[in-house]
Parts: sequence; structure tokens; C-alpha cells
Amino acid sequence: MSEPYDALIARAREAHLLESTAEILAWDQETMMPPGGVDHRARQLGLLARLAHERRTAPEIAELLARCDAADLPDEAKADVRELRRSFDRSASVPAELVQERSEVTSRAQHAWARAREDSDFASFRPWLERVLSLERNRAACLGVPDGGELWDALAEDYEPGMRAADLAPLFAPLRERLGAFVQELSEVHGPSNRCNEIEFEIDRQEKFVRRIATAIGFDFSRGRIDRSAHPFCGGSHAGDVRITTRFHRDNVGDALGSTMHECGHGIYEQGLPADRVGTPLGTAVSLGIHESQSRLWENHVGRSAGFWRWCADVATEELGSAAAMLSADDWFGSSNVVRPSLIRVEADEATYNLHVVVRFDLERRLVSGDLEVADLPDAWNAAYREVLGVDVPDDRDGCLQDVHWSCGLVGYFPTYTLGTLYAAQFFAAAERDLGDLEEPFACGDFAPLRDWLRQNVHCHGMRYGAEELCRRATGAGLDAEIFLNYLERKLRPLYGVD
Amino acid sequence: MSEPYDALIARAREAHLLESTAEILAWDQETMMPPGGVDHRARQLGLLARLAHERRTAPEIAELLARCDAADLPDEAKADVRELRRSFDRSASVPAELVQERSEVTSRAQHAWARAREDSDFASFRPWLERVLSLERNRAACLGVPDGGELWDALAEDYEPGMRAADLAPLFAPLRERLGAFVQELSEVHGPSNRCNEIEFEIDRQEKFVRRIATAIGFDFSRGRIDRSAHPFCGGSHAGDVRITTRFHRDNVGDALGSTMHECGHGIYEQGLPADRVGTPLGTAVSLGIHESQSRLWENHVGRSAGFWRWCADVATEELGSAAAMLSADDWFGSSNVVRPSLIRVEADEATYNLHVVVRFDLERRLVSGDLEVADLPDAWNAAYREVLGVDVPDDRDGCLQDVHWSCGLVGYFPTYTLGTLYAAQFFAAAERDLGDLEEPFACGDFAPLRDWLRQNVHCHGMRYGAEELCRRATGAGLDAEIFLNYLERKLRPLYGVD
Repeated sequence: MSEPYDALIARAREAHLLESTAEILAWDQETMMPPGGVDHRARQLGLLARLAHERRTAPEIAELLARCDAADLPDEAKADVRELRRSFDRSASVPAELVQERSEVTSRAQHAWARAREDSDFASFRPWLERVLSLERNRAACLGVPDGGELWDALAEDYEPGMRAADLAPLFAPLRERLGAFVQELSEVHGPSNRCNEIEFEIDRQEKFVRRIATAIGFDFSRGRIDRSAHPFCGGSHAGDVRITTRFHRDNVGDALGSTMHECGHGIYEQGLPADRVGTPLGTAVSLGIHESQSRLWENHVGRSAGFWRWCADVATEELGSAAAMLSADDWFGSSNVVRPSLIRVEADEATYNLHVVVRFDLERRLVSGDLEVADLPDAWNAAYREVLGVDVPDDRDGCLQDVHWSCGLVGYFPTYTLGTLYAAQFFAAAERDLGDLEEPFACGDFAPLRDWLRQNVHCHGMRYGAEELCRRATGAGLDAEIFLNYLERKLRPLYGVD
Repeated sequence: MSEPYDALIARAREAHLLESTAEILAWDQETMMPPGGVDHRARQLGLLARLAHERRTAPEIAELLARCDAADLPDEAKADVRELRRSFDRSASVPAELVQERSEVTSRAQHAWARAREDSDFASFRPWLERVLSLERNRAACLGVPDGGELWDALAEDYEPGMRAADLAPLFAPLRERLGAFVQELSEVHGPSNRCNEIEFEIDRQEKFVRRIATAIGFDFSRGRIDRSAHPFCGGSHAGDVRITTRFHRDNVGDALGSTMHECGHGIYEQGLPADRVGTPLGTAVSLGIHESQSRLWENHVGRSAGFWRWCADVATEELGSAAAMLSADDWFGSSNVVRPSLIRVEADEATYNLHVVVRFDLERRLVSGDLEVADLPDAWNAAYREVLGVDVPDDRDGCLQDVHWSCGLVGYFPTYTLGTLYAAQFFAAAERDLGDLEEPFACGDFAPLRDWLRQNVHCHGMRYGAEELCRRATGAGLDAEIFLNYLERKLRPLYGVD
């Protein structure tokens, strides 16, 4: 196309080969690696992080970026250059030693966290968290605080470009208030029964069931796989090799189905990125908020809809056996929509989930600013859960040790879960505006219209547009929390008999 | 210890981090990767190979080696320096373009081989083999032919340092003659029944069975794992993370057990290398011949012994169920020792296996020297099988297309399989000399004395000694094919009733 642009892209692709290698090693670490591999794996990942960082920050990149500015490039190539400049500026501001140290420390901190969580022993994890936070503060200082912003913003930029704590506050405040009041209202009436998710089903049958659903909604097994891990996630290397994980409990098929549909949403997004642009911005997901919108959309707007269960109740009977035959589509729909404040974010229902995120956002912002000491985290956590969710935290395992994120150095990440929830509602509403009511095709097991709409309006663009612009182009408006709140109330009020 | 030595070791460890990353990706490719990952994986592996090669051949290495020579180092460090010099000299003598071309050509040649084998279509593979051999001849010329040696020797040095075709000939000639005559003699009498390996057992039960045996002989699952693949192999990253694979057929539990014990032998060796020397010569296996001695030893000297089956017949009944209860220790011992000339090396018995290797060694030596044209390979192969094994080859699929090696550029590799067989017999005889008869502990399921002997006499040394010296230190003598032949005849003559 143009010599500096081609050279820039070739360098980006080489860095991505190393980054995607690290992705496979990280997946392997969670799903396959024996315990004896821990230390060596940390060193492998540290080296790969350093080598990728060297490539992202090589002085030639700055030259090539400047030469690309002078070249007359088409819009798509300009978008590539824009994103590669953003990534170069950020990467180049952090010293290589800090990058490698962070990779090695967090790889070990994750294991410290896993042990601490098992023993509900916050004291043993505390020094690790202090070390990670200190590294993250250093990193934030290198990255630079945006004008009028705070240290937390510099970190959050990794996950959601342009996201500022100060902008999230006005988005999260009504959410917390209106959602909190609504959850309270629901808790005062007799809601649907949870019985579908309390019956015991064999794990092997559950696995066959969720794989069938994954196939039906469009996860492509020739370009991906599903395994088991303690904490479901989506990893892999590129659009041709997407690795998702799920988990099973005998007495909670809803958890396996929800986790699978959620991770499939991430996976279908990755598989829908343009294959010929692997390793370049236009072959890369926009942001974690947009990524999460895809998982939430399939998990909630599809998997917790009445139309879906009109089809899936029969599939459940076929795959799960006679115990499922007693359960009607209404039973499944009801059990999928039980709202009940609880301790664990990843087990939370569609409504209270966002209250868990509100708590984390507030606490990590204070941890980063230094307003909250790590030593005081458990007390602060427990007080927030009492206040926001109305539950008492019995121990740190089910409290501030429940999430892996901070041990991995993922600070500034949590709010993207709620952004994803809001984007999902807005994308789904726009898809129904364009395609008509989707409950009817769902009731026939037809998910292609929705998937194709997402392919065309979200997946195929990669990073061509930022999250906010992508949202405007696909839905006609900027992000609006009202759409999610209205959808939720419209679905749950009749189910709970409250108006 | 000494600054240049420490710097040299740090560089070796960094190269090994990249090489061991490639090992994990290669394992993943065979066991886990979806089809959509093929192209991207090839690019990842290509980049890792280039980066590792750059580190192995950096000009600073030559300087550090020279400074190490001038330093007063202890013997162990001297052994590290000796091996790093050998590796540097060899790597640096081959131009980077040839390394890269070889990687690309063999990657594509493997695919061409797989297709050709499927269709039994040698003609389509012929140009690929010609190209690979031409590259290997170029590579051999760069590496340099040892004094008085031949081109083949320069290649074989990669797999078995110091191995020369001219030295193998006097080792292989009596083997071929005496073994050929012995196999002929056995074929004229009514041998033991193969029925244990013809009964159908459920795959899940076979898997539980072979995992129990793997644990019993000492494969450490906290530092390794076993998966399934079409062609069993041992891979992984270092002593703390060893990945072996095996395979299952409903009607051949002997194949699963033999494959598992074989790969466990490789794996127990890797797990026995000194963990604090990962990525350095003293933490690395000596040679492929010594590696193969460990797999053959567990597969044959343990897994095909009468003592082992006195214990294992009961384990088989417990794990495989009632169909196995009819089978006695003698039945299992007999079926494990059926000798029958056949077409496929990897399915061959303990005796005829080495005749397959003799054929390959002779043919590839002639291919490298130019004495045999690739076009004439199928005829030469078939004639050799008729002459050496007494079998008619019906098609190239089961003839000269059966092995992947040559398509990968592994020329000079095959003889290490038979060297391993001979070393195994000699190590086993020395272990019995030191420990007394081992059939008794085997009959009690006790494999620790043998394993500990191997740890102390073979595994713990890494590359401190070359293969020949290691053999002398452990057994008191240089490699002697008689020991293997005597062992085999001593076991099989009574079983076959021939004296």
C-alpha cells in the first residue's frame, strides 16, 4: 500500500506473534499446566512480554509513524496508524524492566492469591497486593495522568480507551440508586422458583448440553475449543484459534450454561474479527467494554430471554434426560431470572451483578489514590457489601479474595463489566429496531439474524472506530444506562408481579 | 561463579526460554489446537526459532566462550562451556537463511508427506524429499564432515554427538545377522499367544490402567501430564513440566501400555534432570540415544518382563474388569513377547524393531551420499524389507512413507533408536549387577530401586559426560551389542521353547 505503512504493519504483526504466543501459554497455565511448571512459565511469560514490548517501542516505530502521517493513506489504514500510535506512545512510556517485572510479579502473585483464597488467608496475600499496587502506581505515573484526571485513569486506559473515573461516576450513580431500589423492591415479593438450577444433572450430560448450545449460537469449533477451568475465561491466539473455558457443578446447570454462553459471546466476537487483519488494530477488538457487551448480550439478552427458553427447554430435556422433562419453558425462564443479592460477583444474577462492580470500582479507585490502605481492604469491602448489597461477608474467601484481577495487575478493569452490560442492552435494542422482535427466531433456535447483525455492526470493524463512535454508528446514540434499566424492569416486573 | 561463565549461562537460559516455549506450542499443536490455528502457529514457531537461533549465535557468545577458557572454572562449569561451544560452533556455521529455509521447507514437506502417505502416493512426495535432502546436504557441508567421516556424520552429530556411520557399521552388522537368524528361528516354532492384546477393553478403563502404571513406575504428575495424540511423543518445557502422550485402540491394550511406559521412560529422564540447571547443558539430556535408552528400558526391560506381569496381571484385572480376570501373569508375559516380522516400525516387537532401524540407516546413508536416488527409494525399501525382515511391502503407505522423520529434515536420527535399545540393555544389566535381581521388586510393584539407580547413574548428570563416557561410568564398559542380544535370547528362548 505504502512502504512505511506496510513496514509498520509487519512490525505490529511480529509483536502480535509474541503476544499471541503468551496468550496460549496463559491459557495453558490455567487449563493444562502441571503445578511444577509455575516458575518456568513465569519466566517464559516475562521474556515474551519484554520482547513484545521491545517491538512495540522500537525507535523505528516512531519514524514509521511519522512517515505514515506524511503519506496519503486510505481511512482504514489511517485507523491502523492512529491505534498503533496510541499503543506506541503508551508502551514507550513504560521502561522495559518495569514491564518484565510486572509480568513476573503478577504471574507469581496469582499463585499466592489462589493459595490465600483457598485458606481464606488475606494476610498472606497482602504483601503481594501491595507489591502489585506499587508497580501499578509506578506504571500509571509513567503512562501519565490525563488532564484533569486521576492516577486510576492512566491504568483504565489499557482496558477502555478514553474511560475516566470522573465520567463513570455520573453513569454509575443512577445505576446504583435505581438498580439498588429495584432489587430491594423485588426482594419484598415472592419471585420465580430457582428449582431448574437446583436439580442435579450429570456433568457429562451438562457438557454435551452446553456444547450443543454453543454450536447453535454460532461458536465455531473448527476455530476454537472449550475446556474446563476453575474460572471461565476466553483466551487464545487469534480469530482462527479461540479458547474458551467453562465450569460445571452437578446442582447448577444454569451456571454452566450462563458461563458458556458468556464466554461464547467473547469467542464469537474474536472469531468474527477480520481474519486477514490478524495482529493489526483492524483485526483487534475495540475495548474490553465492547468485548463484554458481546458476552453479556449472549448470556443475558439471549440466554435469559423467554424466547430462548421456548426452544431450549426441549433441548435441555433431550440432553439432560428425564429429570429435565418435568421442567417447562416458563420454569427455565423463571429460574434464569431469579434476582437475589449474594456474595460472589461471578455467580450474581443479571441485576445485582452491576452492584458488585460498583463496589470494586469505588474500592480500587481508593486503593490506587492511596486513600485506602491494602491492610484495610477487608473491612472496607465488607462494609461496602453490607451497604450496597445488604449482605454480610462471612470470610475473605467470599469477600475481597474472590476475584483474581488485582493479583494479575488488572486495576481499572472492573468497570468494563458494567459498561459491557450497558452496551449490550443498547446493541440488542438496536438489533431489534433493525430486525424486528428477536424472541420469535430464538424460539425456533435461530440465532443467525442476531449474530449476523453483530458481525456487520460490531465484529467486522475491529478497532476502526473507538467504542463511543462504534456505539453511535450501530445504535444511533451514545451510551445510555436508561436502556439497560428499562429492559431489565420490562422483563422482571411482570415475572415478579410488581408494577 | 565467574562473570563470563555467569553471562554465558544467562544467555543460554534465555535461548532455552524461547525453545521451551516452542516446545509447548508444538505439544499444543499435536494435542489441543483447532484446525484453524495451523497457519498462525507456523508463523509463531518460525519466529521463535529465529529468535532462539539469534541468541545461540550472537557474537558475544564467542567472546564469552573465549573468556571462559581463560578463567579457572570447576569441572562442572567446564562441561557447560564445552557443550555451549559445541552448540555455538554448529549453530554459527549454518547461515540464518538456510536455517529459515529449512524450517519453512520442512514445515510444508510434513504436510506433503501426510497427504502422500494418506494416498500412498510416493510420486507427490518425491520432489519434497529431494528438496529436503538437498538442504540437508548443504547443511552438512556447512557443518563440516569430521576427519575420515562422511556427509551423513555431520547431520547425525545433531542427535548423537560423536556418532559416525563407520562406527555404527560394526555395531549394527552382528545385530542384523544374529538378530535376523534368531527371529527366523523363532518364526519356525509355535510361540506364545497374542490374545491379551486382542481382547477389547473400554478406552476409559485402559486410560485408568495405564495412568496407574505410569504413577507406579514413577512418572510425577505434579510435574507433567499425559494426553492422547495420534503418534505418542514426549514434549514439554523442562523438568517441572513434562508432557507425554499416548494412544488407545479398543483391541490392543498392549499398544497403549507399551506407548505409555515408553514415553514415561523419556518423561522420567526429563523429570530427573537437575531442576536448578534448567536451560543449561548440565540440565539437558545427553543425546537421543541415551534418551531412547530410558524409554526402551521401561517399555521392554520392565514392561515385557515376567516379574512385572506377576504384579501387573492383578492390576489389569482391577482396572480393566472381568475380561482381564481370565488372563494369567503368564498369558500377559507371553503376549508382551510375541515376535513377528511386520511392516510398521512403531508397531514392531522388541526383537524385530531393530531390523527396521537397520534398513533405514542403510538407506538414508546412501540417500545422503547420492548413492541412492530418491526416485529409486521405494524399490530399494521394498527389497530391503524382503531381505532383512522377510516381508512383502504392499504399498508405500506401509513402506517408505510410514515415518515422518525425513520430511522434517531428521536425517541421521534413526540409529539412535537402536543405540537406545543397546544402552538400555547395558544399563539394565549394570543396575542388576549393583542391585541384584530386579524381577523380585517388580513382582511387588516396586520400581523405586531401578528408578533411583537411573537417577544417580544417568539422569542427574545432564550433559556432564558424553554418551560413551556416561555408559562407561555407569556400566564399566563401552557400548556392547552382545548384552542386548544375550538378554533377548535368554528371555525369549525358554518362552518359545528353543535352545
